Amino acid sequence: MIRTVLIGAGSGASYFLAGLEKLKAREIQPVGIPLVNYMKAHRPEDIDVVAVYDVDNSKVGRDMYSIASKLSPFSSVPRTLKDIVVSRGLHCGSLRGLDVDASGLEDALGSPQQALEEFISELVKLKPDVIVNVITTEPMRFVESEGEFVKLASTCSAGATLAYAYAASEYSLRTGNPVAFINLTPPAAANSPGVVSRFERAGALVLGDDAATGATPLTADLLEHMAERGRRVLSVAQFNIGGNTDFLSLTEPERNHSKEVTKSSMVADILGYDAPHYIRPTGYLEPLGDRKFVAMHIEYESFGGFRDEVIVNARINDKSNLAGLMASIVPVAKSLLERGVHGSYATVNRFYMKMPGPRGTKNISKIVAYQDLLKELKKLDII
Amino acid sequence: MIRTVLIGAGSGASYFLAGLEKLKAREIQPVGIPLVNYMKAHRPEDIDVVAVYDVDNSKVGRDMYSIASKLSPFSSVPRTLKDIVVSRGLHCGSLRGLDVDASGLEDALGSPQQALEEFISELVKLKPDVIVNVITTEPMRFVESEGEFVKLASTCSAGATLAYAYAASEYSLRTGNPVAFINLTPPAAANSPGVVSRFERAGALVLGDDAATGATPLTADLLEHMAERGRRVLSVAQFNIGGNTDFLSLTEPERNHSKEVTKSSMVADILGYDAPHYIRPTGYLEPLGDRKFVAMHIEYESFGGFRDEVIVNARINDKSNLAGLMASIVPVAKSLLERGVHGSYATVNRFYMKMPGPRGTKNISKIVAYQDLLKELKKLDII
Amino acid sequence: MIRTVLIGAGSGASYFLAGLEKLKAREIQPVGIPLVNYMKAHRPEDIDVVAVYDVDNSKVGRDMYSIASKLSPFSSVPRTLKDIVVSRGLHCGSLRGLDVDASGLEDALGSPQQALEEFISELVKLKPDVIVNVITTEPMRFVESEGEFVKLASTCSAGATLAYAYAASEYSLRTGNPVAFINLTPPAAANSPGVVSRFERAGALVLGDDAATGATPLTADLLEHMAERGRRVLSVAQFNIGGNTDFLSLTEPERNHSKEVTKSSMVADILGYDAPHYIRPTGYLEPLGDRKFVAMHIEYESFGGFRDEVIVNARINDKSNLAGLMASIVPVAKSLLERGVHGSYATVNRFYMKMPGPRGTKNISKIVAYQDLLKELKKLDII
Amino acid sequence: MIRTVLIGAGSGASYFLAGLEKLKAREIQPVGIPLVNYMKAHRPEDIDVVAVYDVDNSKVGRDMYSIASKLSPFSSVPRTLKDIVVSRGLHCGSLRGLDVDASGLEDALGSPQQALEEFISELVKLKPDVIVNVITTEPMRFVESEGEFVKLASTCSAGATLAYAYAASEYSLRTGNPVAFINLTPPAAANSPGVVSRFERAGALVLGDDAATGATPLTADLLEHMAERGRRVLSVAQFNIGGNTDFLSLTEPERNHSKEVTKSSMVADILGYDAPHYIRPTGYLEPLGDRKFVAMHIEYESFGGFRDEVIVNARINDKSNLAGLMASIVPVAKSLLERGVHGSYATVNRFYMKMPGPRGTKNISKIVAYQDLLKELKKLDII
Ligand SMILES: NC(=O)c1ccc[n+]([C@@H]2O[C@H](COP(=O)([O-])OP(=O)(O)OC[C@H]3O[C@@H](n4cnc5c(N)ncnc54)[C@H](O)[C@@H]3O)[C@@H](O)[C@H]2O)c1
Ligand SMILES: NC(=O)c1ccc[n+]([C@@H]2O[C@H](COP(=O)([O-])OP(=O)(O)OC[C@H]3O[C@@H](n4cnc5c(N)ncnc54)[C@H](O)[C@@H]3O)[C@@H](O)[C@H]2O)c1
Ligand SMILES: NC(=O)c1ccc[n+]([C@@H]2O[C@H](COP(=O)([O-])OP(=O)(O)OC[C@H]3O[C@@H](n4cnc5c(N)ncnc54)[C@H](O)[C@@H]3O)[C@@H](O)[C@H]2O)c1
Ligand SMILES: NC(=O)c1ccc[n+]([C@@H]2O[C@H](COP(=O)([O-])OP(=O)(O)OC[C@H]3O[C@@H](n4cnc5c(N)ncnc54)[C@H](O)[C@@H]3O)[C@@H](O)[C@H]2O)c1
Ligand SMILES: [Mg+2]
Ligand SMILES: [Mg+2]
Ligand SMILES: [Mg+2]
Ligand SMILES: [Mg+2]
Repeated sequence: MIRTVLIGAGSGASYFLAGLEKLKAREIQPVGIPLVNYMKAHRPEDIDVVAVYDVDNSKVGRDMYSIASKLSPFSSVPRTLKDIVVSRGLHCGSLRGLDVDASGLEDALGSPQQALEEFISELVKLKPDVIVNVITTEPMRFVESEGEFVKLASTCSAGATLAYAYAASEYSLRTGNPVAFINLTPPAAANSPGVVSRFERAGALVLGDDAATGATPLTADLLEHMAERGRRVLSVAQFNIGGNTDFLSLTEPERNHSKEVTKSSMVADILGYDAPHYIRPTGYLEPLGDRKFVAMHIEYESFGGFRDEVIVNARINDKSNLAGLMASIVPVAKSLLERGVHGSYATVNRFYMKMPGPRGTKNISKIVAYQDLLKELKKLDII
Repeated sequence: MIRTVLIGAGSGASYFLAGLEKLKAREIQPVGIPLVNYMKAHRPEDIDVVAVYDVDNSKVGRDMYSIASKLSPFSSVPRTLKDIVVSRGLHCGSLRGLDVDASGLEDALGSPQQALEEFISELVKLKPDVIVNVITTEPMRFVESEGEFVKLASTCSAGATLAYAYAASEYSLRTGNPVAFINLTPPAAANSPGVVSRFERAGALVLGDDAATGATPLTADLLEHMAERGRRVLSVAQFNIGGNTDFLSLTEPERNHSKEVTKSSMVADILGYDAPHYIRPTGYLEPLGDRKFVAMHIEYESFGGFRDEVIVNARINDKSNLAGLMASIVPVAKSLLERGVHGSYATVNRFYMKMPGPRGTKNISKIVAYQDLLKELKKLDII
Repeated sequence: MIRTVLIGAGSGASYFLAGLEKLKAREIQPVGIPLVNYMKAHRPEDIDVVAVYDVDNSKVGRDMYSIASKLSPFSSVPRTLKDIVVSRGLHCGSLRGLDVDASGLEDALGSPQQALEEFISELVKLKPDVIVNVITTEPMRFVESEGEFVKLASTCSAGATLAYAYAASEYSLRTGNPVAFINLTPPAAANSPGVVSRFERAGALVLGDDAATGATPLTADLLEHMAERGRRVLSVAQFNIGGNTDFLSLTEPERNHSKEVTKSSMVADILGYDAPHYIRPTGYLEPLGDRKFVAMHIEYESFGGFRDEVIVNARINDKSNLAGLMASIVPVAKSLLERGVHGSYATVNRFYMKMPGPRGTKNISKIVAYQDLLKELKKLDII
Repeated sequence: MIRTVLIGAGSGASYFLAGLEKLKAREIQPVGIPLVNYMKAHRPEDIDVVAVYDVDNSKVGRDMYSIASKLSPFSSVPRTLKDIVVSRGLHCGSLRGLDVDASGLEDALGSPQQALEEFISELVKLKPDVIVNVITTEPMRFVESEGEFVKLASTCSAGATLAYAYAASEYSLRTGNPVAFINLTPPAAANSPGVVSRFERAGALVLGDDAATGATPLTADLLEHMAERGRRVLSVAQFNIGGNTDFLSLTEPERNHSKEVTKSSMVADILGYDAPHYIRPTGYLEPLGDRKFVAMHIEYESFGGFRDEVIVNARINDKSNLAGLMASIVPVAKSLLERGVHGSYATVNRFYMKMPGPRGTKNISKIVAYQDLLKELKKLDII
């Protein structure tokens, strides 16, 4: 079993939990899970979600069956999710400015420090192997040194994602049980040198940042396709619009910018020059729900000075994609821990993440990243 | 210098020649040429086109400046092309059923055998390193054994492409100068065991079949992208419509089928199962000219049983793409010859071709094929 | 009540019947039915389907509940359809060349003449107000004179659609009860002078030809949009691919050509010049089912000689669209009969049909046709 | 001749002037000009641009040949434009916040009042028939009463568009020569009751607001197409991205909102209910230049509860479209003046404008608006 803690009881967590239960019950086939046909050491079915944390007062204390039923309306939700009740996590202002009634352990206990101690002591009881962060997108933040990380995170001054990362590293340091902290959201965890060196020291693993699903990895592979043909990309435009709370929160300029950074990090890396681009979440349109609409336009020059254009449109179940990625990376992370990998791990991040840490890691196309990943996981006897 | 013979004085040849001259004159940059930034041994600028063959009576005897000016109207054509005059080649019925006044050497000389002898003796004078076949798409044909190849090709009974391939192999056998025959059209040259073993024996090289440009390699990479995420592809539709003689000839059912075969060969290979697909040149629409319109639809299932859709539309200068590919594969072929490679060469074919020979070679995605190619060409000290 | 006979127990009929029952049961709202909010004289809910005819041996004798359950899998089918059992109709070779085991009344009774007499006598018992023809697309046919119509149709020599039209006119002539024959398929009923003058004489009404749903009316309105801005349309490409038996039958060249004719009839009419176009059903791809994929490309010149491009992609539930149109035109046809309209009726055909009869009727854009229709139906006190 | 003053020497003005000269010289055909084939009273070739105003210091004092050569790079610019030199207009803060070095007459003369007097006295000398406002998009503003209009506009407190409109009305009042002020930009001129009643009193004409070109009128006609079929539109998303200063200025939230208002005004009007929508200029991407990229997604419900989707992508020469519209509305406006039309004129606005004045005018689809326009202009003997 892979003891797993989810941070954020939102759509991503709901699709993941619903799908996982169906997978275990063999109601669905293992479709949409990268590497699933190769996995030897651990598999998605081994994942055991031991706790889910949130700070939305309408979710804390409720069970994941009722939450998922609302958030994932088009798929039937397994009743086994009634057993998972949402616990109160650390707020650290992550929902500030959004229309959510939220309070964190720090509100209940009086200070961030006490909240963190409480959260760490809960981890000690939960004995997680893997902690997955899928909370609301926060503004982009980097921490340069371990000292800065400890100082800011332990006082909730660098947002919730980094506070949870800090708690994860503390848990590993204190118990000697290495944990993998997987940050599927934009703020720089695996991209912050201070965070990575703390995990390094703790013998623990931090993977991130920002799950690569949907239009962004597709764009990466399209750009690689162009680059390999020697084409000169003239411009890239990519629009995303959806109707869930993820998109709603991204209408806030600071949070939007956070996504823009992770989504755009690939262009120069893959092409070798910074082709003009406009890539960001564009808007919120409620009826689209979790099935976002994507439009992309790429114009390029080919041999002899001619201009070609490629337009991509897509309807994508964003949360299904995210959940499939979770079902893949959790067993991989557990296997890496068992093989003694710590700090961060670029090869894994490059495939699963939009902005792969640790800092300095170049984005490469996803297809190339996948080939590398296959090779390294085979070497490590994980697949 | 790479002494190069072109078979087919059509749009592909025209864009290639016009671009090449501009490249040599440094009027354009080496954009749209795969591998160009890596090439060490030989480069596009080293290509010297020593002859161009055709059988269209309105082209034979005319110079490539006047031909290209008509076929490549949107780019200025270099006047140096006045020096290349089109010679009469072998017809072997390749234009039968199309509205072209054509006659081959066999019509002038009385028999296919005499025509072939004449053509071979011209090759002896031209001393080509590389022969590039870009004639009108012919119906799909395979030859199983060397005997069958010699028998059918030498009597013009297997179409023009195979007749030219036969002449190339004979030239190599008789002179001891190995030549590379690059088949950029659908009929099975590199995919015919009989052809490959003849080239093998001659110490010569046959590459093919059907240049991978435009929507097909893009589809290959999109399918790989889906496969790596464990998605189940439910259907693939791909339409192509253009306004040049290439598309016009593909309105003939037999020729169209030929393209359908090469274009569709990848689906099962890349996905591992034969997802239902409709992939073929769809029609002719004169005003589109060489800038074809492509529409593609892919529907797939992702984690939890959800359905996503990706739609791709493109405007593609088909001949610019083909010409850029020619500018890349000719120097590579010359280098391979120099390193003693003979028979066919799957690693090269897998990147440059839609249906990579020799028979039994699986299609893989183009991005993966490119990574392999980089590695092997480095090993051979070509790049 | 509007006594209605359906010819063709296929997908169109199934979606229509299923939707109609739900509408009557108020399970769905009257969405997707043109004019429904205006209708005064008769409404969709008044439609009473008194018989359905087919010649597919796997359908004749079965009830519409079991047939619709197979053909319209994504919507629950009302059990009231169990009461409608499919009768055997006239074959007249309409399914020839397709993989269907079919036989018509002529096979049972020995001759087309006897079959027609039998069919007419059944009509006499059924007392239909409206007969709707939605059988498999047949090759395009025109009949010039009444004499030719009577001669060919009464011997099954002009296909099934015209045979049914003939029976309808005979029924009206013999009983004095005028019937409306609505031809939703391509063969020229309302576009054949011979047919129209026969209906004229019988005091009956023939509407047609080929229901305008999906991409074709959309293209009409897009072309009008271009024309009103004085743009010069350079080319129009329109692809359609679907996965039902309608599309399967259209893979036959003759039937495909039939659709191409009706679909293309609008270009010159609306633009005033025959812009080069490629508009036809393109292929069959089973997993797409009734939800076809459409791709369209329009290039045009605008002020100052600049070129613009519009690309339309769509997923369309073709049969839902057809059924909604049926639910609209049947009450309109009944009302027209009551107001003494006979022969054919261009104003109605121009909105509802791809190739509006009677011959000589110009196609106009659907939006303009709709405005005209509103006005005339108001004048006739129908809406 | 139609004496015409242009306000704003930007891309729109440049394409218009360049095209107009070519049209007069018969170098191009009258393509892309609505109604051009009907015009009797006045025609585009009759337009005589007697002055162009701007406040960008890099443009004032320069001739339109040099300005247009920079702004309309892909079309050759007629040298006759050398004769048109840009005059300094009223700034009224219209470029505030943008990176342009601008100053208006009020900066030179010390006060808005003096600037307006100067501008009006220049109009007195120019004797314009038509004044066309194509300046940078300003934030949305409405003025309710004539008093408010006079007070705010005469002190430059309601933006430049309203100041120019005020000057136009004053010119008409003082000289008795009625002028037509055509506002092709978003701020409410024809939509402000105070403005319309002032023009009414002056016997002059104000048309507006915001020229209907590109994706917005197309969306209007698509929505009408849906509405006529009784479909229920579930959501509408429309993205626009371009690379000129028009798009650059629209990255400012206030100006963007201004466009959002005019672009969105049609949804509820045409559908009869306010379907959820996201319609606005989305971003700036320099390499796209004047040829913007548009992506649109419409999802709707059709008969029986099925869901269809239509996606539109387009590349549109926005300024060519605007210029063609100018070439059409100027002669129409002149003709209307001659027939004594004053105040505003809904029938014209409904076709040419995104948010047709006067206030209370419902948006209708463009195709319907065009039919109405044809009728009324015929009645007025203008076409
Ligand atoms: N394909 C994808 O959906 C995708 C891809 C990449 C990244 N992501 C990221 O995944 C994250 C989650 O997406 P989602 O759709 O599930 O969002 P969501 O809005 O449905 O759910 C987020 C949940 O996090 C909770 N939360 C917020 N702050 C918290 C805190 N401090 N502690 C605990 N819980 C907190 C919220 O209350 C909410 O329940 C986002 O950051 C998004 O950027 C998603
Ligand atoms: N991107 C691409 O354009 C692309 C991609 C893959 C393959 N191809 C293949 O390239 C080939 C050429 O394309 P194109 O656009 O230049 O076509 P084209 O129609 O412009 O030219 C073909 C030329 O070949 C000549 N020809 C025909 N039979 C001949 C013979 N027996 N001997 C000598 N010449 C002969 C014709 O007369 C014509 O001049 C086609 O087979 C096409 O399938 C093109
Ligand atoms: N949106 C649309 O679907 C659309 C639009 C315009 C026109 N149409 C036309 O509607 C027709 C029906 O479409 P569908 O999808 O229901 O097709 P379908 O293939 O599902 O059904 C056609 C039915 O007609 C029956 N049939 C064939 N010949 C017959 C005969 N001689 N007598 C009685 N029945 C006969 C077949 O057995 C079959 O059951 C086609 O002609 C199509 O071109 C459809
Ligand atoms: N298809 C279209 O392009 C389209 C459609 C509808 C509306 N419009 C509107 O047309 C307007 C002009 O578009 P464009 O592309 O020409 O813009 P542009 O940015 O190229 O030009 C605008 C010009 O106006 C000038 N200007 C700004 N304030 C001024 C003032 N107070 N007095 C005089 N000149 C002033 C600027 O200096 C600039 O030269 C915009 O408001 C836009 O919203 C354009
Ligand atoms: Mg994404
Ligand atoms: Mg191709
Ligand atoms: Mg259709
Ligand atoms: Mg617009």
